[in-house]
Amino acid sequence: MSEGSMMDRRLLLQGAAASAVLLAQGCATAQVSTNERTAITKAIASGHNDTVSRLQQWIANPSIAAENRNMPGGADYMKKLALDAGFQHAEVIPTDGHPGVFATMDNGAKTWFGIYFMYDVKQFDPAEWTSPPLEARVIDKPGFGKVMMGRGAVNQKGPQTAFLAALHALRAVGKKPPVNLVLVAEGEEEIASPHFHQVVQNPKVLPAIQKCVGIIIPSASQARSGQVTISLGAKGAVELELVSSAEKWGRGPAQDLHSSQKARVDSPAWHLVSALNSLVTPDGNTPAIEGWFEKVRPLTAREQELVTIAAQSTNESEAKASAGVKRWIDDLDYRSSIERLVSQPTVNIQGLVGGYTGPGGKTILPTRVLAKIDLRLVPNMTREDCIAKLKAHLAKHGFGDIDVNVSGGYDPTETAEDSQVIQAQLAVLKAAGAPASLYPRNAGSWPGSVFTGPPLKIPAGQFGLGYGQGAHAPDEFYLIESAIPKVAGLDAVTMGFVDYLYEIAARS
Amino acid sequence: MSEGSMMDRRLLLQGAAASAVLLAQGCATAQVSTNERTAITKAIASGHNDTVSRLQQWIANPSIAAENRNMPGGADYMKKLALDAGFQHAEVIPTDGHPGVFATMDNGAKTWFGIYFMYDVKQFDPAEWTSPPLEARVIDKPGFGKVMMGRGAVNQKGPQTAFLAALHALRAVGKKPPVNLVLVAEGEEEIASPHFHQVVQNPKVLPAIQKCVGIIIPSASQARSGQVTISLGAKGAVELELVSSAEKWGRGPAQDLHSSQKARVDSPAWHLVSALNSLVTPDGNTPAIEGWFEKVRPLTAREQELVTIAAQSTNESEAKASAGVKRWIDDLDYRSSIERLVSQPTVNIQGLVGGYTGPGGKTILPTRVLAKIDLRLVPNMTREDCIAKLKAHLAKHGFGDIDVNVSGGYDPTETAEDSQVIQAQLAVLKAAGAPASLYPRNAGSWPGSVFTGPPLKIPAGQFGLGYGQGAHAPDEFYLIESAIPKVAGLDAVTMGFVDYLYEIAARS
Repeated sequence: MSEGSMMDRRLLLQGAAASAVLLAQGCATAQVSTNERTAITKAIASGHNDTVSRLQQWIANPSIAAENRNMPGGADYMKKLALDAGFQHAEVIPTDGHPGVFATMDNGAKTWFGIYFMYDVKQFDPAEWTSPPLEARVIDKPGFGKVMMGRGAVNQKGPQTAFLAALHALRAVGKKPPVNLVLVAEGEEEIASPHFHQVVQNPKVLPAIQKCVGIIIPSASQARSGQVTISLGAKGAVELELVSSAEKWGRGPAQDLHSSQKARVDSPAWHLVSALNSLVTPDGNTPAIEGWFEKVRPLTAREQELVTIAAQSTNESEAKASAGVKRWIDDLDYRSSIERLVSQPTVNIQGLVGGYTGPGGKTILPTRVLAKIDLRLVPNMTREDCIAKLKAHLAKHGFGDIDVNVSGGYDPTETAEDSQVIQAQLAVLKAAGAPASLYPRNAGSWPGSVFTGPPLKIPAGQFGLGYGQGAHAPDEFYLIESAIPKVAGLDAVTMGFVDYLYEIAARS
Repeated sequence: MSEGSMMDRRLLLQGAAASAVLLAQGCATAQVSTNERTAITKAIASGHNDTVSRLQQWIANPSIAAENRNMPGGADYMKKLALDAGFQHAEVIPTDGHPGVFATMDNGAKTWFGIYFMYDVKQFDPAEWTSPPLEARVIDKPGFGKVMMGRGAVNQKGPQTAFLAALHALRAVGKKPPVNLVLVAEGEEEIASPHFHQVVQNPKVLPAIQKCVGIIIPSASQARSGQVTISLGAKGAVELELVSSAEKWGRGPAQDLHSSQKARVDSPAWHLVSALNSLVTPDGNTPAIEGWFEKVRPLTAREQELVTIAAQSTNESEAKASAGVKRWIDDLDYRSSIERLVSQPTVNIQGLVGGYTGPGGKTILPTRVLAKIDLRLVPNMTREDCIAKLKAHLAKHGFGDIDVNVSGGYDPTETAEDSQVIQAQLAVLKAAGAPASLYPRNAGSWPGSVFTGPPLKIPAGQFGLGYGQGAHAPDEFYLIESAIPKVAGLDAVTMGFVDYLYEIAARS
């Protein structure tokens, strides 16, 4: 579900002023000499073709949890990628759902650091793509440079492959990474990580992560301007289906019935409409589930300040164009739209499905209809409390028969501004000449709470130079050779990960 | 949409007492001698295999308007069937949609009579059938006899083929039908007859129908008990889609957007839910569109009497089992459920479609969603007035942007109890020993108003002995050789049509 976070960032950063310092000339950070850094840069360049090839092969092997496609296979592949990159130990961790992967690399360093990967990708329809989504072709994209187009290119295989390339490059120059690494990967990120906590809390895995000073997921964080926005958290999310059926209700027809009988037979479809209608205000914009705002923590003064900075440093027209909207809800001004984006919980309809869905009409009274829903949660809401409140609300309003089928979700996540994970990012970006700003919270979600919440409570974030587009959409791509000023291509992204590991080591 | 009417009948008639007189022994009606009648009966038996074969070939050639399947072809086939049955003139009548067919047979009789056919059938999914739906196999069905299973078998190709077989049989014995005939056929019955009025009002067709004393559509009207319920009308119907889109609304995303943006972007899906919710009472059972009941004519004393008879002569448990329901809306008693069925207009959701409809979830805020709706109208509501009221209601409540895409529909239809069309039916059924009762109005719909409304204003109804099941559903079948006491098989049905034409002639 990480697309949202990346989209937020891009929306916010387009048009922002950017430093003129070139990434490739970024100065060395702590504990690596200039000569060593030059050697690593050369090793990255020498390994470029191997890295590109490694990414292409990974994209050619998609794992899609929603379709139960290549799920054990994807975990095995992830394990192999880790071992190839120098992890001494890697194993598949079973869960009640699809398996995760756990790997460790003890470099004899003082500090342990965590890396979170997702090996799954979003569903795709090849018919919607201009380039075959599993061929991962490298294409000249005018104004961008050379990009790799394929499902998962930016979300998240490209950035993750760049991180692994950093380890390959260090090994090539005979250097051990400056920190010890723990890798945890899941295959259910795109279905809201229903079992990732089982990976993290596995008795083999938990003690390893507990040693880590923090954890990141590699990502392509740059806007076209070069700027990087560092989010200090992300909303939680719950994905669920609300299913209205005659079977459960005890009213309406046991099978689809001729619609003429509506005059005397109850309709599960109208029942669902009425239930849905009770969940939000009439404009559809504010949750109306009882007690929904009980635990919502208002933005702090610092968060309000960061919202103001975001509004001032970004371009509203570009944000609207990127979202494809003419106006925000209630015709809000730009700052208010950002404040709402970072601070407000949502109840969203992803899809409506039921009855006759083909061309034209069919005179039936359907026995069963459903709505696909996602909830976004802000601190201090929790997944479990929200699910309980939703069920209580439905029951109280006469919809207790409607099934609430939760398929995934997790709590909001927050990471302190003064944590190593964040401060090391700021240092690397500054050294690389990439302008950086802080942002209170992604409106999109990622399962950071698995790390930032109990029992681990370690700082967790996203990090990575680089650029891509189209996560969850057709023609997803990841920038390989950058023609965009101040935006890193694959090799510079890889060097950014090297620098980040040294920065973490220096701060520990 | 004729399924509803047949379903009503069966629901109402199951368990009713039935006469012991065998159909095959029904006495001759006016103007045909006993000898002649015997000869015709023999001719029907001789032609039986040809009739079965003719029906099988017709079923093998389905026309489905909703899928634009074999539409000009189906009209040509219909024309050929008419010419083969002895119509001297037959031609395809173009419309703004799919074509109709018009045929005449001048037998030098005093009286002209109309026959209405539909050459289209409902959509089907072969995977849901136990017998291939286009092979029209004749199958032994325990407790029923030999049935033909195929799409359109009972709705309406079987009864229509039996009517044509009556003409073939009369020709075989050298007799001209006792009335002159006008045949009008359409290929859009299953999409609510959006262009049938253009067939009927075609300058070639209208004067011919104007000469007719009445018109029927052949149908399989018997319940398993043998009883026939004659409906004195049918509800009108309108099929439409309500489409909520960002494009039309000017709010929400131009394309599907990441759902994290819900916090500041309007949702066409919630907009549709709110609009739908305004159309009915919270229980979904009574239309709440402004002015909806303005033209609704309450049941007459005679109609109330017929409702009471229907409630007394039929079995509630069987009616509930047939509809697949445990209780009627509001836990109504049986008579009240029938009163509501015949007297109340409805707003029904056939289907909900929009956004992500595949397996699992997908974190999008859809740009466009729609509801498939049918409206059932009672006298004196009209299609045009209802569409106008629906649009006015939506506009008044802030949903003026929601598209109302009407795909078909027509006014309610009523035929007087004392009309020839009805009285001739009662006489034939009495002579055939099939118990008959009158019913105020089918809750299902057929485009009878094209005939009963202006400019024609001729009596119109459905008629035919015989039995079938599964209109609109898998394993649709039509009874060919009856093993059910008092229920007619194909040959007795055919003789019933012969008798009906003589009865019409005698009453003119």
